[in-house]
Amino acid sequence: MRWYIEKGPESDVVISSRVRLARNFTEYPFPFRMDRNQRHQIIKTITDNIKNSDNDIINKLMYVDMQSITPIDRQAMVERHLISPELAQSEQECGALVSKDERISIMLNEEDHLRIQCMFAGMQLQEAWKLCSSIDDFLGEKIDFAFDKAYGYLTCCPTNIGTGMRASVMLHLPGLAMSGYIKSILEACSKIGIAVRGLYGENSEAMGNMFQISNQVTLGQNEEEITSNLTNIIRQIIEQERNIRQDMRKRNGLKFEDSVFRALGILSSARVITTDECLKLLSNVRMGVNMGIIDNINIETLNEIMLAIQPATLQKSVGRPLEPEERDAVRAMTVRDKILKSFNAN
Amino acid sequence: MRWYIEKGPESDVVISSRVRLARNFTEYPFPFRMDRNQRHQIIKTITDNIKNSDNDIINKLMYVDMQSITPIDRQAMVERHLISPELAQSEQECGALVSKDERISIMLNEEDHLRIQCMFAGMQLQEAWKLCSSIDDFLGEKIDFAFDKAYGYLTCCPTNIGTGMRASVMLHLPGLAMSGYIKSILEACSKIGIAVRGLYGENSEAMGNMFQISNQVTLGQNEEEITSNLTNIIRQIIEQERNIRQDMRKRNGLKFEDSVFRALGILSSARVITTDECLKLLSNVRMGVNMGIIDNINIETLNEIMLAIQPATLQKSVGRPLEPEERDAVRAMTVRDKILKSFNAN
Repeated sequence: MRWYIEKGPESDVVISSRVRLARNFTEYPFPFRMDRNQRHQIIKTITDNIKNSDNDIINKLMYVDMQSITPIDRQAMVERHLISPELAQSEQECGALVSKDERISIMLNEEDHLRIQCMFAGMQLQEAWKLCSSIDDFLGEKIDFAFDKAYGYLTCCPTNIGTGMRASVMLHLPGLAMSGYIKSILEACSKIGIAVRGLYGENSEAMGNMFQISNQVTLGQNEEEITSNLTNIIRQIIEQERNIRQDMRKRNGLKFEDSVFRALGILSSARVITTDECLKLLSNVRMGVNMGIIDNINIETLNEIMLAIQPATLQKSVGRPLEPEERDAVRAMTVRDKILKSFNAN
Repeated sequence: MRWYIEKGPESDVVISSRVRLARNFTEYPFPFRMDRNQRHQIIKTITDNIKNSDNDIINKLMYVDMQSITPIDRQAMVERHLISPELAQSEQECGALVSKDERISIMLNEEDHLRIQCMFAGMQLQEAWKLCSSIDDFLGEKIDFAFDKAYGYLTCCPTNIGTGMRASVMLHLPGLAMSGYIKSILEACSKIGIAVRGLYGENSEAMGNMFQISNQVTLGQNEEEITSNLTNIIRQIIEQERNIRQDMRKRNGLKFEDSVFRALGILSSARVITTDECLKLLSNVRMGVNMGIIDNINIETLNEIMLAIQPATLQKSVGRPLEPEERDAVRAMTVRDKILKSFNAN
């Protein structure tokens, strides 16, 4: 099963955990200054090393060349969090090494020569870090990574220098968002060097009450400290979110359940729906499932739907480009089908 | 089956047809001037005559004494259109003779001594008139009704003098209401002596896009002319309503179907719902069923629900008085149950 369909630990609040490491070769300039030949060399060196590894996880990574796939395929990879929008838009030779379960993705020739990324469902930051680190260890033996004794790993953008690590966790916070308490939490986070973003990273809004929490500091803390700091903060947010949900339910009684069931009712009957409305309703349904209000649908189905409704994934599923209006109709149909299938199975 | 559950002719637009005749005894003053004894005499004379009739429809009418039933029972009779709100509120001796299928109701000691009323599902004004007339003929043989050669039947309120007849048809006009065309139709009606009211007669709003169309003139036209005039006007309104529905569907495509299915989705999942919202959604669903958009629910179920959600009927169904908030929850449950039952049967 692909990692993003799974239901991980603390899945009532935590959608996913992700760690990525930025790494660069010593002997090449940063990607934005490389010529065609150098770009090609980077890719060849890494893919050759991967192929020849005797580690079964690593040698099974599959290389996807961005220039040989369609823009819709690239966008669909962005939607699965496998690559960044920047890599999808690049016109130079670049690509990503991806594992079958899509848990591992190594972007080549993005902002840095390598961006090693590992993703897990639910609260599994330690696991993501361990896997990422093992891939880093393997590649570090073969490749001379740019490293400075005083600063640590050198990266294209100074904000990544040091560990080159970004640890991030996607949280579903409908309680904190609806009650308005989210504001003070976001403020507190930014004061201690924690960034909060939307579902698709920088500049993306918190659609469907999804918030991505990540470290901003890469210098002066080691990887263990970064992950354990972030984990502590997230544990606190999880507790607050759980308390506020119970509190809202207690105070609003049947009206609370009503809004959950209505969301499910609309999702299972609409014939036209925008991504935005869909994510809002899914947020309500997810909360309902996690609180035991809805029992005939499971979290895996909601995870599936959340990805399936994204524009490129949707167009790939029907095998042709769709006009925005048509997309709203196909999206509604897709959601309905998946919900009805889950109803029948439960 | 009770008449109001049935699906009659032209049921895509016409909910029900009703004819009522106002009649008074020559030898008694109008009810508002009667003493206790006279009120009692009126009731005794009529119920005795009914009981002793050799007509099986008439002798099976059951007398319901308003003073011997609870206010909730009275209100539930109003909701089934069996009696007027005025009769339900009266503190004097009064009542109604009702047939088992609730098609016939004869109110005694309302504004007039007798109000003979017959109701049919769909467009059956002629049938309602015929049944009403046969009961009038039977009673006319036994009782000396107040009648003036020049004016016709004499009634308490001068607006009923002449035929004493009110013919009315309940129409479901979502297309005309949503498009705004209803205004010009209502204006045209009032110019030719046709009254338009809401679901529960005078002073009631057009809830759920239900409009009651009736004759205002009782003098100068005979009963046949009144019913055929009204029928002609209604045939025109039916055509306009049908055209505008098709037109709206053509123009709005999937969005039109979307709003129909969403209405059904909300009705089948809400946990709290007001009468007003419920009637609005039912209106959409009814239109969807009549246009073949929804096929797993039938009109009879919608008729059942429309009555079941009314406050007194709702309270009678659970066997105890309910606070308004509790009512919204029981209403939602009732609607859900009936819809799911219909889904399973279809």
